Amino acid sequence: MGAYIALIYGVIVFAILVIIGLVRFIFSQEKGNEKMQEIAGAIREGAMAFLNRQYKTIGILALIVAVIIIIANYFGNLSKGSSQAASIAFHIGFAFITGALCSAISGYLGMYIAVNSNVRAAAGARKGLNRALQIALRGGAVTGLAVTALSLLGVATLFLLYGGASGKENLIKEAPSLIVGFGFGASFVALFAQLGGGIYTKAADVGADLVGKVEAGIPEDDPRNPAVVADLVGDNVGDCAGRGADLFESTAAENIGAMILGVALYPVFGWKGILFPLVARAIGIVSSVIGLFFVNTKDESKDPMKALNKGYFVTTILNLIVLIFVVKAMLSGKLPNGQEVNWWLLYGCAVTGIILSYIFVWLTDYYTSYHYRPVQEIAKASTTGPATNIITGMSVGMESTALPVIFISIAIYIAYKLGEHALPGFATGGLYGTAIATMGMLSTCTYILAMDTFGPITDNAGGITEMSGAPEEVRNVTDRLDACGNTTKALTKGYAIGSAALATFLLFSAYLDEVKKILGRPLESWFSVDIGKPEVFIGAFIGAMVVYLFSSTAIRAVGRAAQYVILEVRRQFKEIPGLMEGRAKPDYAKCVDIVTKGALKEMVVPGLIVVIAPILVGILLGKEAAAGFLMIGTIAGVILALFLNNGGGAWDNAKKYIELGNYGGKRSDAHKAAVVGDTVGDPCKDTAGPSLHVLVKLISTITLVFVSLFR
Amino acid sequence: MGAYIALIYGVIVFAILVIIGLVRFIFSQEKGNEKMQEIAGAIREGAMAFLNRQYKTIGILALIVAVIIIIANYFGNLSKGSSQAASIAFHIGFAFITGALCSAISGYLGMYIAVNSNVRAAAGARKGLNRALQIALRGGAVTGLAVTALSLLGVATLFLLYGGASGKENLIKEAPSLIVGFGFGASFVALFAQLGGGIYTKAADVGADLVGKVEAGIPEDDPRNPAVVADLVGDNVGDCAGRGADLFESTAAENIGAMILGVALYPVFGWKGILFPLVARAIGIVSSVIGLFFVNTKDESKDPMKALNKGYFVTTILNLIVLIFVVKAMLSGKLPNGQEVNWWLLYGCAVTGIILSYIFVWLTDYYTSYHYRPVQEIAKASTTGPATNIITGMSVGMESTALPVIFISIAIYIAYKLGEHALPGFATGGLYGTAIATMGMLSTCTYILAMDTFGPITDNAGGITEMSGAPEEVRNVTDRLDACGNTTKALTKGYAIGSAALATFLLFSAYLDEVKKILGRPLESWFSVDIGKPEVFIGAFIGAMVVYLFSSTAIRAVGRAAQYVILEVRRQFKEIPGLMEGRAKPDYAKCVDIVTKGALKEMVVPGLIVVIAPILVGILLGKEAAAGFLMIGTIAGVILALFLNNGGGAWDNAKKYIELGNYGGKRSDAHKAAVVGDTVGDPCKDTAGPSLHVLVKLISTITLVFVSLFR
Repeated sequence: MGAYIALIYGVIVFAILVIIGLVRFIFSQEKGNEKMQEIAGAIREGAMAFLNRQYKTIGILALIVAVIIIIANYFGNLSKGSSQAASIAFHIGFAFITGALCSAISGYLGMYIAVNSNVRAAAGARKGLNRALQIALRGGAVTGLAVTALSLLGVATLFLLYGGASGKENLIKEAPSLIVGFGFGASFVALFAQLGGGIYTKAADVGADLVGKVEAGIPEDDPRNPAVVADLVGDNVGDCAGRGADLFESTAAENIGAMILGVALYPVFGWKGILFPLVARAIGIVSSVIGLFFVNTKDESKDPMKALNKGYFVTTILNLIVLIFVVKAMLSGKLPNGQEVNWWLLYGCAVTGIILSYIFVWLTDYYTSYHYRPVQEIAKASTTGPATNIITGMSVGMESTALPVIFISIAIYIAYKLGEHALPGFATGGLYGTAIATMGMLSTCTYILAMDTFGPITDNAGGITEMSGAPEEVRNVTDRLDACGNTTKALTKGYAIGSAALATFLLFSAYLDEVKKILGRPLESWFSVDIGKPEVFIGAFIGAMVVYLFSSTAIRAVGRAAQYVILEVRRQFKEIPGLMEGRAKPDYAKCVDIVTKGALKEMVVPGLIVVIAPILVGILLGKEAAAGFLMIGTIAGVILALFLNNGGGAWDNAKKYIELGNYGGKRSDAHKAAVVGDTVGDPCKDTAGPSLHVLVKLISTITLVFVSLFR
Repeated sequence: MGAYIALIYGVIVFAILVIIGLVRFIFSQEKGNEKMQEIAGAIREGAMAFLNRQYKTIGILALIVAVIIIIANYFGNLSKGSSQAASIAFHIGFAFITGALCSAISGYLGMYIAVNSNVRAAAGARKGLNRALQIALRGGAVTGLAVTALSLLGVATLFLLYGGASGKENLIKEAPSLIVGFGFGASFVALFAQLGGGIYTKAADVGADLVGKVEAGIPEDDPRNPAVVADLVGDNVGDCAGRGADLFESTAAENIGAMILGVALYPVFGWKGILFPLVARAIGIVSSVIGLFFVNTKDESKDPMKALNKGYFVTTILNLIVLIFVVKAMLSGKLPNGQEVNWWLLYGCAVTGIILSYIFVWLTDYYTSYHYRPVQEIAKASTTGPATNIITGMSVGMESTALPVIFISIAIYIAYKLGEHALPGFATGGLYGTAIATMGMLSTCTYILAMDTFGPITDNAGGITEMSGAPEEVRNVTDRLDACGNTTKALTKGYAIGSAALATFLLFSAYLDEVKKILGRPLESWFSVDIGKPEVFIGAFIGAMVVYLFSSTAIRAVGRAAQYVILEVRRQFKEIPGLMEGRAKPDYAKCVDIVTKGALKEMVVPGLIVVIAPILVGILLGKEAAAGFLMIGTIAGVILALFLNNGGGAWDNAKKYIELGNYGGKRSDAHKAAVVGDTVGDPCKDTAGPSLHVLVKLISTITLVFVSLFR
């Protein structure tokens, strides 16, 4: 075991060294002129102020939850004796706090670098596309590495501390169940980070646009608009901190789930089956770093997206190659009947996951990019007004759920069957196959996150360039990068929801394994969740409904928070003399402050719905009903998220397509209609949709943590 | 058995006599002046032409499906021997054709009366509110009676023919499974009737509005608009023929499902448990007729809705009383342990269903009427433009799924537990409880349908009055009735989706009973559908997705069909000289013809998706996967329908609320924004939403009919 542990910690140290190198690279870059620095300073201050206050709120909520977890698990496990119950409760509670802390630290670090990279990318743009691209991508890479390395560090260390280091079979087998708290801590922070960030970013955006563009008639990103800095801050807190926390949770929760499944295969693989997910993650970090250094655009005329795709491709190929050796080394073994495990089949599972990630990225692109039929259809419908724009967008969003679901289904089926064939006689063999597929899909996570955070950095760089009045050729560079960043942000959402969907099965099975343990059944046995029982049906029905209720409250929260912004911007326009003429400066900080307070206040209700509902179902209707809630809630959540994300993305790009000069171009009636669609899509794709990714994983970890309480 | 059969047929004869009486009453009423008759004639012709052509298309599709059913069931049952297989195939196929035919006949009759009642209601309005109300409601009652009586006649007769009349236990027990074809025939017609009608009505509406109101600037229902007659026709084919077919299917499919469950309880109730659903339906017809005669508004100043509610109340109370005796007489018996069945508990199930129907009607009212917070919120959001109107509407629609789901869950739980306690030792005892609850909920179906068809009749009466230039006091009367009709239409949708949701469990269980028979397991045993198996999970995932794909294609179909109308109206405005000045008449018939063709063409793709998907899932992934598809498809369908129906209704009434003078009233910016919301809501609430009611029942009947083919 020692060698593998050394490998894991070696990679973590490597990741930290790379982060230090990247940070030094970024801080060594030019910071641009005074005007640029001033704007960037305001963004930085606003973003960090939001994060500080958000973490304070989350921290208080997390402390309350930690106490509840400890009490619940103490009483839930009392049948095992008081000291055993206290030990379990303490371990899970401590893991929860660790998970929450690690997620917060990685979010904080990633965001700190992002808000320092934006102005440097803007300054770099004056020296050409490649320089700006490098700065933005390396800034994003810090988030990617911080998230994956810290997740790995947390899970690995807890595993060792909680019994993994003992070398004793019974302790090793118990450890994964005790670290589920880490996953719940991560998803708890992620839910509120994504929700709060999502509400913030859209409230600021909608508020700035409605009063600035519509009422006062000044252009986007105009420095006279008091909400413009809040808008730029929003991109960071939503896309950078929010999505970072989202994928932190994915990697943590799915690692832990896979480790729990690995326990059931102990007779075949020993501790290697439990440790495999962590080693696979470590490999992914290294190959992502190599991939990142393959990105450059020597030829400035080329689409920067091509350069990013090249790095992604390199990362994928490296993973595909190295995983052969890792799977062979770790997932070989003898079946109870003496036969050798066919590890090639298990490698096939990993390949399935990697292919699925490509398909998901491609499908998202198809439904949200203006190069294809769906977005163009919305643009065309805009010519007959906002109503037809909205109707067509809804129709496209709904349609866009079909192919992803079909491909996830195929991938799960293949991975399951491969796992079943590789591990005959083990009830959880097929499930372990889907777990390996999930590991495969998430092996490129570091790279994907770097591309994602690249989005808000280039967006900010564009805003800073615009506000500082830079010459047109510089703005051209940042515009090209910004367009590219919009694409990467959309693709990451596809990736995030795809991996969430693929992981459903894995987390669901991990939950069932916990149920088996509580009921004293052997892990190799099958536990059936019968949808024909009324409790399960009701749990399922409520699970699907909660997804809608949550989205409703999340969308409404944006509207409420935007109202605060609107009132404040109107007030400043009225009360600050000379503002519209450019003689006086607006009070950016006040606006930032108001959105911060508004977003944090409004995130509480939707957040609590998701936390309380599954626990209530479990307590009132029992363990099987909670499983129904979990499974159908996930199905409904994934599909609704696809609808909201893709619909929103398509509306956004339909507007952009018209702005390129189609159907009358800017200021045409079609454009006005498309702006309505874009505004409607905003809370869908940036607040409710991404929060749903977190939701589907949160309901898994929450049921895992509270299962001992359920009837 | 003879007495009960006599009762059922006696009620059918009674219903036919009442229909004759109502028809004579309607045709004895004044037809209004020449101008009114001319318009009504055009509507009548258009509606009947649409229905004729629609039935022709459906007829062809149905014949193809009938052949497939017969072949599939022949080969699927070959293991039982060739002659037995041929017999089963023939019975199911014949039942399918009968079901399709009965549904078509009732739709045809109801519509024929509706398009003859509208002008008489308009003429009656000149003599006062009560006269108009009576004509419209009695016209609607013909649909209600035709639908429920023909459904009862079909199911009862097939039951007797297929073995029920033999008096032999084994034949009686087999009969219900053979008549599932009737349910599938009914749902097949309903799907296309609701889809085709829904597409027609909204394509005509959107087309008429976009060119007439927006482009040419003429008011709604203006006789110069070539699409105005098509628009009035649309109300009939969507709300009258479509919803009639929807509830025809409900009553048929749910009766059959309950009869199948009754078979498993043969040891306790004998044939009475199988016949109970039919007797309960017969009771409902009689009490509805009595309720209808309680409706009148002597005091003309009172809200006509109060009068309608009074009739509904009377119907409900009568059902509650009579059901005591029916349940006692039919659902008493001895359990295998010698104990008497506590029939009061079973009566409690029926009461649960009746209460649920009231709750559903109330909840729908809360979310879609402008007297309450949700709609007023949308109206307020309209002041900041169409985008906020849409966002708020979406949020309200999503929110509106929560309480209905919670109440359905509670009702299912209560009915299940009551059934379980009344019938201990029977695996299907609890399910039979939910079946009785569904019977209770559907016992007021005749009355509800009368109220529903009242909607398009008053809507048409309003249009005819407007177009014929009647004096204002007459228009006031029809306006009041029209507003009342809008409410009843919305409430019926709530009722339809509520009963569909309650029936899910019943139809799902009927399917499982069929599976048990095929697998040779005893009906008393439990068959579990394990969502933890990958096939079931995939079936469930695809089931939830198909609901979205279907809605997407249905909504898009409206847009496409509307394009045909727009082009034609523009052509007429351009090519008919003097049309705008009122010197020439537009070619109404041409417009009607074009919408008809467009709607029928566009309904095929969404319709086929729903028919093919469950069969494919069953063939490829097996019986359990089909069960997953069925159950989760239903959950997803019910929730999405609630979202679309309530969201659409709320948008509609937010516009009406503003038109009453709030937030600036008509022609204000808020009103313009609200019009966008209303247009977006139209295909949601009148095409996709109502079609989903049919969809969720269709996937039940289709899996029942094709189960022998499944792996």
